[in-house]
Amino acid sequence: MKSHGYAAHDKSSPLVPFDFERRDPGPKDVVIEIAYSGICHSDIHQVRDEWGGSIYPMVPGHEIVGKVTAIGNAVTKFKVGDLAGVGVTVETCMACENCLASAEPYCTKGMVGTYNAKTYSDEPTFGGYANNIVAPEHYVFSISPKLDLAAVAPLLCAGITTYSPLRHWKVGPDTKVGIVGLGGLGHMGLKFAHSFGAHVVQFTTSESKIDDAKKLGADEVVITKDASQMAKHAGSLDFILDCVSAPHDLNAYLNLLRLNGTLCLVGLPDQPLPIAPFAVIANRRSLSGSMIGGMAETQEMLDYCAEKNIVSEIELTPIQKLAEAYERILKADVKYRFVIDMATLKS
Amino acid sequence: MKSHGYAAHDKSSPLVPFDFERRDPGPKDVVIEIAYSGICHSDIHQVRDEWGGSIYPMVPGHEIVGKVTAIGNAVTKFKVGDLAGVGVTVETCMACENCLASAEPYCTKGMVGTYNAKTYSDEPTFGGYANNIVAPEHYVFSISPKLDLAAVAPLLCAGITTYSPLRHWKVGPDTKVGIVGLGGLGHMGLKFAHSFGAHVVQFTTSESKIDDAKKLGADEVVITKDASQMAKHAGSLDFILDCVSAPHDLNAYLNLLRLNGTLCLVGLPDQPLPIAPFAVIANRRSLSGSMIGGMAETQEMLDYCAEKNIVSEIELTPIQKLAEAYERILKADVKYRFVIDMATLKS
Repeated sequence: MKSHGYAAHDKSSPLVPFDFERRDPGPKDVVIEIAYSGICHSDIHQVRDEWGGSIYPMVPGHEIVGKVTAIGNAVTKFKVGDLAGVGVTVETCMACENCLASAEPYCTKGMVGTYNAKTYSDEPTFGGYANNIVAPEHYVFSISPKLDLAAVAPLLCAGITTYSPLRHWKVGPDTKVGIVGLGGLGHMGLKFAHSFGAHVVQFTTSESKIDDAKKLGADEVVITKDASQMAKHAGSLDFILDCVSAPHDLNAYLNLLRLNGTLCLVGLPDQPLPIAPFAVIANRRSLSGSMIGGMAETQEMLDYCAEKNIVSEIELTPIQKLAEAYERILKADVKYRFVIDMATLKS
Repeated sequence: MKSHGYAAHDKSSPLVPFDFERRDPGPKDVVIEIAYSGICHSDIHQVRDEWGGSIYPMVPGHEIVGKVTAIGNAVTKFKVGDLAGVGVTVETCMACENCLASAEPYCTKGMVGTYNAKTYSDEPTFGGYANNIVAPEHYVFSISPKLDLAAVAPLLCAGITTYSPLRHWKVGPDTKVGIVGLGGLGHMGLKFAHSFGAHVVQFTTSESKIDDAKKLGADEVVITKDASQMAKHAGSLDFILDCVSAPHDLNAYLNLLRLNGTLCLVGLPDQPLPIAPFAVIANRRSLSGSMIGGMAETQEMLDYCAEKNIVSEIELTPIQKLAEAYERILKADVKYRFVIDMATLKS
């Protein structure tokens, strides 16, 4: 199947137009004509080989939405014309204890990423900065036409990455929750925690984000550089979702947790962070982490978003301006997620 | 009330005989004639002011057992002649959410230690290296005469410190559990985990401990310096109880946990330990910690030990040989806990 998109050919050149082949759809595959593709911070890390092992040419993108244009004859959940999405994962073993527990991202054989990966049959995967994609039905999600389709795209990564831990740790009306960082991940964490009825404290380094945080659902906003504001919350939070990718002091946040509280990392700082043993021993706290969510949970999230009218805050970009979008993401100069308008690919 | 024991007068001198006063028992107090007092590694840290803030003169000891010799007129759980014990705590606020949840060690006002602390009315506390102690009934435990009394003493700290997290994280017949370190804490963790029906893997640096670990209930023993033995358990453990007080690589143990597994620190390394974010994000793992246990849980543990005939492995020492015992503890040359025979105090 012919595809056309934008690819990185090495770690330092800009992305350029790229023609490539995808596999022809098999009986269980769904073909999607991509309408929008979100830009995740991890796209930049992988394009620039900052995590090592990047595979070129690389067509990034794992926040993919569009319209079904073809289905294999064993596909049961979709028909041509349906809205559908693909997220971070396109293959897992479906036989290990984690896959069988609907926790496919933790597949013990290793999940296959939507791009910059090889399938179990050793074919490279290409992501969503393209006109189409083919993926097994199990990794394709149904999207409600009620929602703004472009603003749904980031739910496939930023959305499920924050929804999953908030659900796993049972955030709800009786919990006081902290969200650290107000970016692509953080603003979705804030929206979800608020919608679950929690009392939400947004932590940010930036005074300029206070109004936005309140509009998005924060009950309180703490400027993290102000020690007295931090101290006010000592020992009081049930759960903290830490959405920051840069190295930062986790002990300062652990100390804000009450008995049995959890600090969960979803950002991925690229170096080890020092933990004071007493910060977890006091109040029997936990430092945890979480990756996206399982396939069933991702569909549950999309259905929940349709019911509650929750989408990402986005800025549309033409695909020709990827370099500019990347630079602005690195400066945190976007509210709060870039989404590529794939209609621009043809122009 | 007159008391006689051994005290440290500064951070570098040996402990010497010491006469002091305790408060006269109030209506809710229990007086115990101390028969045995365990030596906890934390005694050495505090005697030598290694955690800072030590209060001298210091009578250490928080693994205390003996016979009740007097009770206040409001005491209901004890009568003169009963066997009784005191552990790490002698006062908490009993009004905060943690105290009300029977989690007194996590009292938000701060628990008052059995020694090297000040009560809420600013009186210094003196511990168990002495002929007697007075403590409120709430912090005194009933001890079964079925057990070897000397070997019960370490249950009041080493016992409850390991029992509590194993119970909190629901270790049982369906769990594969790791115990890191085979010392005072570790050998109790091993005994409890085995008695709860778990499959227990003992981690140790020392080949000489393999036979002992198996005798104490280990199903498998891993020599931690052998990377291939460690790798065999990657992603397979439900829970790891880390009983090591010296700095060590926690990421190596986190990597052994399966989905939703927890590594719980009960040793207290005195410096921050670097955690690789991916080590917790992968498999949604938790790094946690735990302090002793609540008062009700401590009594539950002692009752459980009486039912299952579980005590500490001990070596009795006369109080005159404290210095030698301390040196041997620092060399890990004791199987597995020193207990002071308080009968030697009179000689």
